Amino acid sequence: MQTCRMFGLAIMALSTLSAQTKGTVAPAVALREKALVDDLVAANRVLAHEIHVLDAYGHISARSATNPNHYYLSRAISAGMVKATDIIEYDLDSNQVGGSKGDGYLERFIHGEIYKVRPDVMAVIHAHSTEMITFAAAGVPLRNMIHTGSFINDGVPVWDARKFGATADDMLVRNPALGRALAGALGSRTALILFGHGVAITGNSLATTVSNSYFLNMNARIQMDAMRMGGGSVSYLEREPGAKAPAATPAGAGANNRAWEYWKRQVAAEVGR
Amino acid sequence: MQTCRMFGLAIMALSTLSAQTKGTVAPAVALREKALVDDLVAANRVLAHEIHVLDAYGHISARSATNPNHYYLSRAISAGMVKATDIIEYDLDSNQVGGSKGDGYLERFIHGEIYKVRPDVMAVIHAHSTEMITFAAAGVPLRNMIHTGSFINDGVPVWDARKFGATADDMLVRNPALGRALAGALGSRTALILFGHGVAITGNSLATTVSNSYFLNMNARIQMDAMRMGGGSVSYLEREPGAKAPAATPAGAGANNRAWEYWKRQVAAEVGR
Amino acid sequence: MQTCRMFGLAIMALSTLSAQTKGTVAPAVALREKALVDDLVAANRVLAHEIHVLDAYGHISARSATNPNHYYLSRAISAGMVKATDIIEYDLDSNQVGGSKGDGYLERFIHGEIYKVRPDVMAVIHAHSTEMITFAAAGVPLRNMIHTGSFINDGVPVWDARKFGATADDMLVRNPALGRALAGALGSRTALILFGHGVAITGNSLATTVSNSYFLNMNARIQMDAMRMGGGSVSYLEREPGAKAPAATPAGAGANNRAWEYWKRQVAAEVGR
Amino acid sequence: MQTCRMFGLAIMALSTLSAQTKGTVAPAVALREKALVDDLVAANRVLAHEIHVLDAYGHISARSATNPNHYYLSRAISAGMVKATDIIEYDLDSNQVGGSKGDGYLERFIHGEIYKVRPDVMAVIHAHSTEMITFAAAGVPLRNMIHTGSFINDGVPVWDARKFGATADDMLVRNPALGRALAGALGSRTALILFGHGVAITGNSLATTVSNSYFLNMNARIQMDAMRMGGGSVSYLEREPGAKAPAATPAGAGANNRAWEYWKRQVAAEVGR
Repeated sequence: MQTCRMFGLAIMALSTLSAQTKGTVAPAVALREKALVDDLVAANRVLAHEIHVLDAYGHISARSATNPNHYYLSRAISAGMVKATDIIEYDLDSNQVGGSKGDGYLERFIHGEIYKVRPDVMAVIHAHSTEMITFAAAGVPLRNMIHTGSFINDGVPVWDARKFGATADDMLVRNPALGRALAGALGSRTALILFGHGVAITGNSLATTVSNSYFLNMNARIQMDAMRMGGGSVSYLEREPGAKAPAATPAGAGANNRAWEYWKRQVAAEVGR
Repeated sequence: MQTCRMFGLAIMALSTLSAQTKGTVAPAVALREKALVDDLVAANRVLAHEIHVLDAYGHISARSATNPNHYYLSRAISAGMVKATDIIEYDLDSNQVGGSKGDGYLERFIHGEIYKVRPDVMAVIHAHSTEMITFAAAGVPLRNMIHTGSFINDGVPVWDARKFGATADDMLVRNPALGRALAGALGSRTALILFGHGVAITGNSLATTVSNSYFLNMNARIQMDAMRMGGGSVSYLEREPGAKAPAATPAGAGANNRAWEYWKRQVAAEVGR
Repeated sequence: MQTCRMFGLAIMALSTLSAQTKGTVAPAVALREKALVDDLVAANRVLAHEIHVLDAYGHISARSATNPNHYYLSRAISAGMVKATDIIEYDLDSNQVGGSKGDGYLERFIHGEIYKVRPDVMAVIHAHSTEMITFAAAGVPLRNMIHTGSFINDGVPVWDARKFGATADDMLVRNPALGRALAGALGSRTALILFGHGVAITGNSLATTVSNSYFLNMNARIQMDAMRMGGGSVSYLEREPGAKAPAATPAGAGANNRAWEYWKRQVAAEVGR
Repeated sequence: MQTCRMFGLAIMALSTLSAQTKGTVAPAVALREKALVDDLVAANRVLAHEIHVLDAYGHISARSATNPNHYYLSRAISAGMVKATDIIEYDLDSNQVGGSKGDGYLERFIHGEIYKVRPDVMAVIHAHSTEMITFAAAGVPLRNMIHTGSFINDGVPVWDARKFGATADDMLVRNPALGRALAGALGSRTALILFGHGVAITGNSLATTVSNSYFLNMNARIQMDAMRMGGGSVSYLEREPGAKAPAATPAGAGANNRAWEYWKRQVAAEVGR
């Protein structure tokens, strides 16, 4: 925390220098991490229009590649219309330090607090997937059905904001304390369900986080259907006893990267509009 | 009622002045409430082509912003093709008083009679959502699953037109008496299911009514799936004992407005076609 | 039958005169019933691309408006690509008597044999709706769930081609005898399920037949979901004891026509391509 | 095997001559089998964008029409973006012998090893259909529901890579031994489910393989729904006792070909992009 505060101050100084142009990504940011910001914009469009993980609500962020104590997240608009000029740069306390001057998402603390305690996480999605809300309501734990959902073998905990001061009529992660509680419940896992609300999904790169969100919903639909058909006799794809979770695929490699290149291509024509 | 009749007369006089151009929104109307009419047209397209609450049937109306005893509703065409020139101005007895001279929807009384008894309601949707018909047929009450469906905690009553003179082969709300009975059953709630027919959904603004319709169907699908998976042990998102329903979000604020801006943008290219 | 044979002969003579241009609708046909042929083309596109009743298989025909002993049906191509020049004119024995010289659908006898015994029927759809095949396989009778599916109260019988000489590996209605058996099982009803195969749907106009196919699938999905949720206590929308089926809506009137005008508009840009 | 090795050598020699242009289909290949390669490209697009059997993962191959010991398969990109210049020519040991110099799919052995033992098979699809994974997890055998899924009467076995050295975290068919085990389990059947992973589907032509994949998923959805509705009393479309499987429809004939021509037309505008 002490470290984060210090970074925060350093960053605020930097942002004073770099974020001079109202409503646009400040030149310094754009120069430093244009490729990452462009990928984050593409990820917004992919999640909204290609794999339908995000509807008009929900958001995705990426940790800065040059400063691990900063992250990028759109101002508070729908993912399907995010452009590079909408991206805000935040410190890990979720203070705005650069980029767009627009209002941020109320629930940005989901992102900031996860980045604080999970140095391996490079991107975070907060979505309102009906599949995830369904499992939590039914009290059924997600279990692994597909080899590409292998991270589900680590568990997908259910977190209820009401145990931390929220109410049925306001379940939003609207402050750092709620974000910290959520990040604590996530622990070292990839994904966590927010009861009556949605899901938080992480990964070691933008591409992996996006495909994790895809496989999480796919796994849930398969499990739901298999349980309805097979009753008590469903066979899950459980990790072999004693086996360790596989090392994360490096960014830019493997089948996840293949999907990422394809999905980005599918939304290429709309990015910037 | 006495008041409404009087308004009706006043309005009819006004409409004689203002609605001179056959088949178009009369200039006076257009000047007075162009922004509202444009938003109503956008809402028609959003419901038909973006969030799929309306199919070729069903309709959405908006109460006049300048005269609370008038409302706007398209002539009897499918929502997905409504243009500004198709909008009719009605009084609360659902008499045509301005705008398009085309035939109105037979079931416009759903709108007029709700506006009469619910001054807080600024827009009404009548849809044929399969989710809603399913819950009524199954005799299962809708219960709240998601924090954005908080209004479901107030209850979503089922209304059967056959108790008011309709028959299995004609369930239409085709006269003021049926509309009044429906509005009475709705009471102070947000939504009501029409048995074997569809749903009526309200809100304190066009944007809120549209997002209410979105969350109502989403909530129903989650509940349906959770009940199938979890059997008797489904956990609902019930309002805390003694808690009051939250104040309505002001029009133009909050996440609903974010979605509304996005949805309108998604149909912007088709509006007018 | 005697009458039909005679008409057949007369028509064959006519077709010799009128269908001189290979692969096109002969001028005489086009002049006589251009509007009907254009509507049939639109219906093909609507069923394939707008309401998704037809996939790459399945077909729709319309009875001639000028000669009740003739009907129109595309040559054997997918509904989603049918153009006016693909339409064949048939007599009620399903002999090609005009229009496109291309090969006809093997199962055209479904159409011809229904037209023979049902003078009220002006259009026929043969589709492979999964909903319909599911109900027949489950042995669950379709029951009315929505007021627009009122014709379901007349019953939707299941017909099994294997009782008339077909086999599990060839269930096609590939000859007049199978078509006659199917038409006999349909009787005076609107729709009939072909076990392990699909459905035949009729109506008193093209527009009504198309909307009947829409409501039949919608009704089936509602019933399926309601049965899963409500178990034995599902409430059906049964016709009142002693009530007669309502008179058919005249072609070009009512909400069905509203949908028809909209659906045609939705595919207008693609017709002819 | 001996034969295959020999062909392999001959082909490698040929490929040295024919595949001189880096990253493109070598002229000799293009000249020899341009029509087949074009159809394979179309099949990739149809499976991804028209009938949704393939998502960003999965692939389809076609056996060479001129050399039965060679097959064509895209380099490792998503099916929805495959172009003619992405096609690789392989021998049946899945060694790259011509065409694109890009990296191949890790799981190409599914294709090569099936072609080796099934001379009748002219195309192979590897997909990750949720329906197929569901049936395997539920331990429910696929059974025939529709006459166009007649091949399901031959059985759709479930194959578990873990019995051949794979682990829950790596179920990929990443070597010839796993491919051979899979091909052995397929035997003379049309399709095989990979537990926790997906499906392999074959056919005697590209068109038939594509429509087999379409009907396999359709059949699964019908069976799933029928079992939920009908419980123990579902009626399957079983082949008559003593009846033999029907002869395969020749390539370019029948309703499958009709669908194929339509599906190709639907993606025609995007091929090459």
